Amino acid sequence: MEALGRQILVEFYECDENVLNNVAQIEAILLEGTRLSGASIISHKFHKFSPHGVSGMVVIAESHVAIHTWPEYSYAAVDIFTCGETIDPWIIQEHLKEKFDSQNTSAMELKRGMFKVARGQKLLFKPENAARFGN
Amino acid sequence: MEALGRQILVEFYECDENVLNNVAQIEAILLEGTRLSGASIISHKFHKFSPHGVSGMVVIAESHVAIHTWPEYSYAAVDIFTCGETIDPWIIQEHLKEKFDSQNTSAMELKRGMFKVARGQKLLFKPENAARFGN
Repeated sequence: MEALGRQILVEFYECDENVLNNVAQIEAILLEGTRLSGASIISHKFHKFSPHGVSGMVVIAESHVAIHTWPEYSYAAVDIFTCGETIDPWIIQEHLKEKFDSQNTSAMELKRGMFKVARGQKLLFKPENAARFGN
Repeated sequence: MEALGRQILVEFYECDENVLNNVAQIEAILLEGTRLSGASIISHKFHKFSPHGVSGMVVIAESHVAIHTWPEYSYAAVDIFTCGETIDPWIIQEHLKEKFDSQNTSAMELKRGMFKVARGQKLLFKPENAARFGN
């Protein structure tokens, strides 16, 4: 069995709540981490909630990065979904952990899209063509 | 322990590949399913890849819905992340399953953001204030 994608679910507890409540900082940190991983950013959108909290999504050629923050609990939930073997999603996790100053982080990695492939064959991933996209 | 959010990870196998490769249809189906669940849509963005595949994100007041499709494998990965108790994320899963004509679907539900709360106390969720957002 081979997987089309891998997904990292990260729980960032005990973070700097001022960072988690600053939409401009969250956006800058996520975009920086995504670039560091080698992923190609296609679009991104971040929202500040009232009275607190930020939600953001970064669509990358290799899938997505999503964040939801609860500054009132010093907590952020982050999902990093990637496909292909050219980028390392854990670079994003490490970058965010440092910037959020998270004192308690847990993460798990899942495989998504499992297929049987013949011996010697490989699954084709989007990144081969992802640089050319429309709409 | 109580959770701030719940997340449904869905694997849609053996889908109609024409639907999975049609960005307008994918967008319409996800937005319709999201509305049916009672969630409030804040923003959305869908991309068509060349030669095939669609990625899309819907930011909702209660978190997000994300999709990545591989029509060449008749497969779509969907994440439905919600907080609060006012919406039912499984309505989205059911709607997509029907519209994608998935003959083989697996799903799991995770809890995100676990906190100890005092007896009789409850965690506060974003939806109370999510209707008012900026940026």
